[in-house]
Amino acid sequence: MENHQQIMTSSWQLNCPIQIPAETDCVTLAHGEGGRLSRKLIQERIISVLKNESLETAGDAARLPRVEGPLALTTDSFVVSPLFFPGGDIGSLAIYGTVNDLAVSGARPLWLTLSLIIEEGFPLLILDRVLQSLAEAALSTAVKIVAGDTKVVPRGTVDGLFINTAGVGELTEPVPPGPACLREGDELVVSGPIGQHGIAVLAAREQLQFDPLPHSDCGSLLKAVALLRGALGDRICCLRDATRGGVAAVLQEWAESSGLTLSIDERCVPVSSGVKGMSELLGLDPLHIANEGTMLIAVRQGAGPAAVSVLQTLSKTAEARVIGSVKARGVAAVTVKRTLGPEQPLHDPLGSPLPRIC
Amino acid sequence: MENHQQIMTSSWQLNCPIQIPAETDCVTLAHGEGGRLSRKLIQERIISVLKNESLETAGDAARLPRVEGPLALTTDSFVVSPLFFPGGDIGSLAIYGTVNDLAVSGARPLWLTLSLIIEEGFPLLILDRVLQSLAEAALSTAVKIVAGDTKVVPRGTVDGLFINTAGVGELTEPVPPGPACLREGDELVVSGPIGQHGIAVLAAREQLQFDPLPHSDCGSLLKAVALLRGALGDRICCLRDATRGGVAAVLQEWAESSGLTLSIDERCVPVSSGVKGMSELLGLDPLHIANEGTMLIAVRQGAGPAAVSVLQTLSKTAEARVIGSVKARGVAAVTVKRTLGPEQPLHDPLGSPLPRIC
Repeated sequence: MENHQQIMTSSWQLNCPIQIPAETDCVTLAHGEGGRLSRKLIQERIISVLKNESLETAGDAARLPRVEGPLALTTDSFVVSPLFFPGGDIGSLAIYGTVNDLAVSGARPLWLTLSLIIEEGFPLLILDRVLQSLAEAALSTAVKIVAGDTKVVPRGTVDGLFINTAGVGELTEPVPPGPACLREGDELVVSGPIGQHGIAVLAAREQLQFDPLPHSDCGSLLKAVALLRGALGDRICCLRDATRGGVAAVLQEWAESSGLTLSIDERCVPVSSGVKGMSELLGLDPLHIANEGTMLIAVRQGAGPAAVSVLQTLSKTAEARVIGSVKARGVAAVTVKRTLGPEQPLHDPLGSPLPRIC
Repeated sequence: MENHQQIMTSSWQLNCPIQIPAETDCVTLAHGEGGRLSRKLIQERIISVLKNESLETAGDAARLPRVEGPLALTTDSFVVSPLFFPGGDIGSLAIYGTVNDLAVSGARPLWLTLSLIIEEGFPLLILDRVLQSLAEAALSTAVKIVAGDTKVVPRGTVDGLFINTAGVGELTEPVPPGPACLREGDELVVSGPIGQHGIAVLAAREQLQFDPLPHSDCGSLLKAVALLRGALGDRICCLRDATRGGVAAVLQEWAESSGLTLSIDERCVPVSSGVKGMSELLGLDPLHIANEGTMLIAVRQGAGPAAVSVLQTLSKTAEARVIGSVKARGVAAVTVKRTLGPEQPLHDPLGSPLPRIC
C-alpha cells in the first residue's frame, strides 16, 4: 500500500545523512486518514521505536500516575529547515527543546506528547531517521513520550515535516522565583558559547562552505540545571534557555519583568571563532542568534563565580562565564559594553529575520 | 511595524466570516523572531484574549498547582481547510478536540497548551477571529490555556494556519477500563447523528451548494460524558469520540483491542438527511466520515437504553441511539447490517481520502 514515488529535492532535505533512492516508500494521504494505514504507520514506525507502556495502551489520552508536587507544562513547535544540521536534527531538537524549557523552569521533566505534521510524499526512510533520533534523545533525558498525533497534509501545504512536543514536569523546590524578583547586583551567567545553533542551521540551509562548520549546541541542559540548583539553591533567581532571539531576547524580557537594567560585557561572552567569523560576514550579532542548549542564569550578588565553577565541571558547559550584572534602571533596559567602543543599548533584532532555525 | 499586504485568495480563506480588505495588516516573519514584535503579538493579540494568570507570568513553562489524582495527557494538531466551516472553525475545533479526548478518557480537563504555526502574510484580522473563537470555547469548557508557542514560517511553507493543542486532565473514578475489557453482549451507543463534521468541511472547501448545508457537530462532549458517567458508573466500558476515520475506525480499533466482533445495524445509526444526501452523491459511507463532537460508547449488557435515556436529556446528544453490540469473534472484526441487504464486514476506508478535515 505504500507508494513508491519520485522524490523531488526540497530545501528540508539538505544535509540529510541518508541517501534517498530515486524511488522510495513515501507517506501518503491515506496514512493520515485514521484507518488501517494510519494504525500501521503509528504501530510499526512510531510506537515500535518510542516504545513504552502508555503509548501501547493509548486511547485518546495517556493515563499517567499521580504526581506528588506541583506541575509545569510547556509546548513548542519545531519547523526547522533543513531537517538535519551539524550537531542535530528536528527529532533531537523537538525533545531537547521541550526538556530544556521544563528544566529551566525548575521542573523535573516527566512526560512528552509528540505531534507530527507530515507532507504527502515525505520519504518514510527520513521519517524513520527522525524518529530514531527523537527516541534516543528521549532515552538520554529519561522522558517518556506517552501520547501523540499524526497528520498527513497534501503536497505543498506543509514543507516536509513539522513537529510539536508538549511537556509535563514536576516542579522541585526551591523553584527559582523568576525575573520579576531580580535585584540590583545580581549576576548574569551564560552556560556556554552562544550562537552555535542559528549559525549551524543557516550554514546548512545556505550551503555555506566553512571549515570547520559551526555545530549546533542542540542538547540537554538537565544535568547542568540539576548541578547548579543543587549547589546554589535559592541563590538562583532565574534560568532561561536562549533560543529564538538569542541572549538579547532573554535579557530584554528579564529587564521588562524586573524594571531594572541588565548590563553585559561583550568581552566576557564566549563565542567560537566559527560563529564569530560567520556573524561578521553576514552582519549578524551573536547576541541575537538562537541557541538550543545554552542558557542564561541570574544569580544573587557574589554567586556568579560559584555558578561558573559548577557549570565548568560538565563538558557541555565548560565555557560558562559571568557576562554581566543587574543595575538600577538607566536609560536603556539592556546595555552591552562592546569590545570596541563604549557601553551602548542592546536592542532586539530588527530587520534581519532568520526564519525556521528551530 | 506591521505589514500592509496584498492578500491572495487561498483555499483556507473560503467561508471566512470576515471581509478582509485588499490591504490589511499581516503576520510577518519578524513576528516569529523572538524579539519585540513576537512579544507584542503574544501580549496584545494572544494573552489579552486568552487572559489568565499562568499565561501572564509565563516563562518557559507554566507553573501549575498540584493535582490530587492520576493524570491524563493528550495532543492533537489541527490542519483543517478551510479554517471556517458551518458550525465551527479551527479555533473552536482545537479546543473541543482536545477537551473531548480528555473527557472520553475519563479525565476532567484542566489545562491546555496552544501552539500556532502561522504562514507569513496571514491576515491579523483572521488570526484575531480564530483566537476569539478559541477563547470562547476554552471558557465554555472551563479549561485554561496556560502555555503556548508561536512560529511564523515563510510564505508557501505552511498553508495559512495550523494549531496544536495538548491537554492535561485529572482522571476521575471509576475510569472506564477501555476496549480490551469488552465482553460479549456489551452494547454500542452513538451519541448523535454521524458524519456532520466531515461533510460540513468538505462542502465548505468544495463550495458545494446544498440547502441547508450540513453543520459540523464541532462541540464539547464534557457534559454528556459527565452525565453518562454519573448515571452509569462502572457499567461504561469505553468511550471514544469518532473523529478521523469516523465510527468505523473506532469500531475497528475496539475490535482489535478486544479480539471480539463489533456488530452494528445501519438502520439504527442516526444520519441527517443532509449528510445522507451528500454521502450518496459523493460515494462516501457516513460511517467513515469524521465527527468532532459525537462519540461511541460501549456499555455492559442491558445498559444501552439507560445510556440513551441519559444522553437524550441534552440537546447535543438528543439523537443518541443503541446501534449494535459485541459478539464472539466471527469472520470479520466489524460487521454492519445494511438497510438493504445482509450483514457484511465493515472495512476501514480505503482510496477515498478526505484530507484536512480536522
